[in-house]
Amino acid sequence: MPMSRNRDAYAELQRLLREVDTLRSIQATLGWDQETMMPPAGAPARAEQLALVAALGHERSTDERVGALLAECEADATLLADERVAANLREIRRDYDRARRLPTALVREFAETASLSMNAWKEARQRSDFAAFAPWLAKVVELNRRKAECYTDGGSGSALYDALLDEYEPGARAADVESIFTELRGALVPMIAEVAGAAAQPDDAPFRAAVPIPAQQELGRFVLERLGFDLMAGRLDTSTHPFCEGAAAGDTRLTTRYAETRFPDALSSTLHEAGHGMYEQGLPKREFPGQPLAQSASLSIHESQSRLWENMVGRSPEFWQWLMPVAHRVLGASTHRFSPDDLYRAVNRVERTLIRVDADETTYNLHIMLRFDLERALISGDLAIADLPAAWNDRVRSDLGLEVPDDARGCLQDIHWPMAAFGYFATYTLGTLYAAQLWDAIRRDLADLPDQIARGEFGALLGWLRENVHRHGRRYPAGELCRRATGAPLDAAPLIGYLRGKLAAVYGV
Amino acid sequence: MPMSRNRDAYAELQRLLREVDTLRSIQATLGWDQETMMPPAGAPARAEQLALVAALGHERSTDERVGALLAECEADATLLADERVAANLREIRRDYDRARRLPTALVREFAETASLSMNAWKEARQRSDFAAFAPWLAKVVELNRRKAECYTDGGSGSALYDALLDEYEPGARAADVESIFTELRGALVPMIAEVAGAAAQPDDAPFRAAVPIPAQQELGRFVLERLGFDLMAGRLDTSTHPFCEGAAAGDTRLTTRYAETRFPDALSSTLHEAGHGMYEQGLPKREFPGQPLAQSASLSIHESQSRLWENMVGRSPEFWQWLMPVAHRVLGASTHRFSPDDLYRAVNRVERTLIRVDADETTYNLHIMLRFDLERALISGDLAIADLPAAWNDRVRSDLGLEVPDDARGCLQDIHWPMAAFGYFATYTLGTLYAAQLWDAIRRDLADLPDQIARGEFGALLGWLRENVHRHGRRYPAGELCRRATGAPLDAAPLIGYLRGKLAAVYGV
Repeated sequence: MPMSRNRDAYAELQRLLREVDTLRSIQATLGWDQETMMPPAGAPARAEQLALVAALGHERSTDERVGALLAECEADATLLADERVAANLREIRRDYDRARRLPTALVREFAETASLSMNAWKEARQRSDFAAFAPWLAKVVELNRRKAECYTDGGSGSALYDALLDEYEPGARAADVESIFTELRGALVPMIAEVAGAAAQPDDAPFRAAVPIPAQQELGRFVLERLGFDLMAGRLDTSTHPFCEGAAAGDTRLTTRYAETRFPDALSSTLHEAGHGMYEQGLPKREFPGQPLAQSASLSIHESQSRLWENMVGRSPEFWQWLMPVAHRVLGASTHRFSPDDLYRAVNRVERTLIRVDADETTYNLHIMLRFDLERALISGDLAIADLPAAWNDRVRSDLGLEVPDDARGCLQDIHWPMAAFGYFATYTLGTLYAAQLWDAIRRDLADLPDQIARGEFGALLGWLRENVHRHGRRYPAGELCRRATGAPLDAAPLIGYLRGKLAAVYGV
Repeated sequence: MPMSRNRDAYAELQRLLREVDTLRSIQATLGWDQETMMPPAGAPARAEQLALVAALGHERSTDERVGALLAECEADATLLADERVAANLREIRRDYDRARRLPTALVREFAETASLSMNAWKEARQRSDFAAFAPWLAKVVELNRRKAECYTDGGSGSALYDALLDEYEPGARAADVESIFTELRGALVPMIAEVAGAAAQPDDAPFRAAVPIPAQQELGRFVLERLGFDLMAGRLDTSTHPFCEGAAAGDTRLTTRYAETRFPDALSSTLHEAGHGMYEQGLPKREFPGQPLAQSASLSIHESQSRLWENMVGRSPEFWQWLMPVAHRVLGASTHRFSPDDLYRAVNRVERTLIRVDADETTYNLHIMLRFDLERALISGDLAIADLPAAWNDRVRSDLGLEVPDDARGCLQDIHWPMAAFGYFATYTLGTLYAAQLWDAIRRDLADLPDQIARGEFGALLGWLRENVHRHGRRYPAGELCRRATGAPLDAAPLIGYLRGKLAAVYGV
């Protein structure tokens, strides 16, 4: 940092923001605990804790003092001459202006409702009881609409949804997302139809082999460490919905889930969350404690990291060449008959299914587009809460050709709306698009990568991601980060090309 | 609550205190996580979180508004006419006046140092490296002295230690504790000598049987549920030092620890923590959310609950009559040769050992007296930090006749000083004294209790404790609670009588 008369102002600003970030990290830890450890009867007290911490964080982040210090720093050319400081101030300004638009009471109500709603959803989903969850859904939609109105000064129509999307994907607009989704959809639909008619369908036998869960856990931990996830600064646990929580510097927590059969699914989840986790561990959290520069660029960039490890690495033939001998040793007799190629083909099967998180790489994106469309309709009011199950089931019929047998396997399957997150789903497919584009750049830069993967060496790959993505934090917006790392703006072509190549190899289409 | 012009003031006071208590519950949850789940590299961020929450809680609890509302309520005869409201206001006043004596900066430093010190101690203990921990010990002693000076307006001598003791055991004075300890010691020392010379020494074979840890966990859970600990509102985990955290309403967490041998120790720890946990679950937390009436009376009353279940129940012949058939089924072949009487005798062996938490019921109290004396000397300055190991080893030699081979098994063995808790240890023996006195009263009231325990029925016992101890929270000071429940003030005679009876039965002395 350059010498400056405002050096003190910048230092004090950083100190204040560090406290705000500490409150955020407490919220993250309590959220992790809620999904992994908390006993059921603890739910009401947890909602109260989360609401209070959210309110305290909001109060502190919107304090007049923060605004005054920020203005002082922004007026100082010496400070702005350091490009990293300038980027940090730009992002602090963004956070401050957005936070100032929300009343603390709304932030508090939002956090408390999200926590209670998640618990209500867990019960409703178990009984596949949409009616029981509908009042909570109405509540979280209304809260999101109120939040969007604050962000847009009482705006309406597509501006409301854009304001929500902007929370997860800064600068993104639904119209642009729709445009790239439409291009992708145009390629996916015929691809999926062609594959469905292919003569050589991969055998899914590896997904039916019974493997004891402790053995799957051992394999998962082995893979985590080899990829480069630091278990001294993180954990791996079990939860209904796998997730990654980058709670604090030195404390990144992953979860996955296991079934006695379907060991490749548990491993995919572990790889996916490890991708998120290695991004969190690669952010410069100790260098810029509590500051935007230490945070992820956007949710889609986060997702690009998880998809890259889960799909580009974990569904490659080289990965299974490396892992299969280990898997044979760890997983036991029921897997001995499978070759690396059996696994490669099995994990790349394309099949229309009901559940997003179980979907293959190709059809997965149709699940996202469906949610992206329906949540926009919920926020705009074009779709009434009560009509959601029917609208969902219609889309599953037309997009995937399946009948939804119950809401638990339909509109109640995901945690996102229950946790009051609207504007989130699109980042999954955006992240997959970024992953494919990054992968093309990586393959150009690391010619030897397939051989490295076949030897279980991931250091060069992780190094590339650290250098081109992780270390930048929020220094560049997602699109700019992509341009710098890959030389081009985001484009659907790399993902379409990647999937075509994959399906040609597996299905011969 | 009666109608009153100050009803609104009382309601607002309760609302403010509820937020303070929510911050305390967050601290408790983060503390539990630190000891059970947190990865090592998360330690610095955790210390920052705990310091911030402690400071926020202190700021809010000492707010002028709290003082003004409290004074308004205290001046209202209508409010005070309700004896429970009056008790609540008395305890709110105590908390407020004490908190107001501390600067927030000290509270913050205390919490941060305690968290960092615990992590430093973990490493130092592993290497038995007192020198590495000494600077931290100096720091926490100094912080405790500063805190005591705040409480006593710059007092000195025994007043300083009394102020620390008062935090854990309201109203207690070291001189009174010393007097009852001296009486107890006078009985224990000859008892222990006599037992050491007895011809019939119980066989400790059950402590050498190898039992897989998952089987021990299953047995522990079975016992927990039969005692009456609600696992829907709690958990049982593993930690280096077993503890109980009553984090929030509906969320009470126990830990224990396991070794392949010594299954009775793991079970004792589980029973002990379950006693704490059932007290937490029996406090009227939903009726008086966040108020003193929903909190435990004192640490010694808390400990009376754990000791009662661990010792009076868990080391009784009837308990093993009930449990042994179950244990045979769950624990496997290595325990089949043991009868209920073998276990009863083995768990009641008296043996001078180095480690407090492994000590038997009788010698345990000598471990406490040693710590009580040494920590008073540390706080008064009569004992220099550097001289602690030698002073410790001298006392172990004179009190227990043992040589301390290293500081890990000497003055580094306990977590209390590392977590900056001075004035805490005495409550262990005070609690044991309360437990014995409660047990006499229970045996008078529940004539059939031994038969109930032999059938694995604990409902009447738990009901008695709920009625006479748990439901009162902090309504009565510890001594008064004891008088109401047992008809007499605290006395050493019941514990001495209990131990004499036990040793007569086991050793024939």
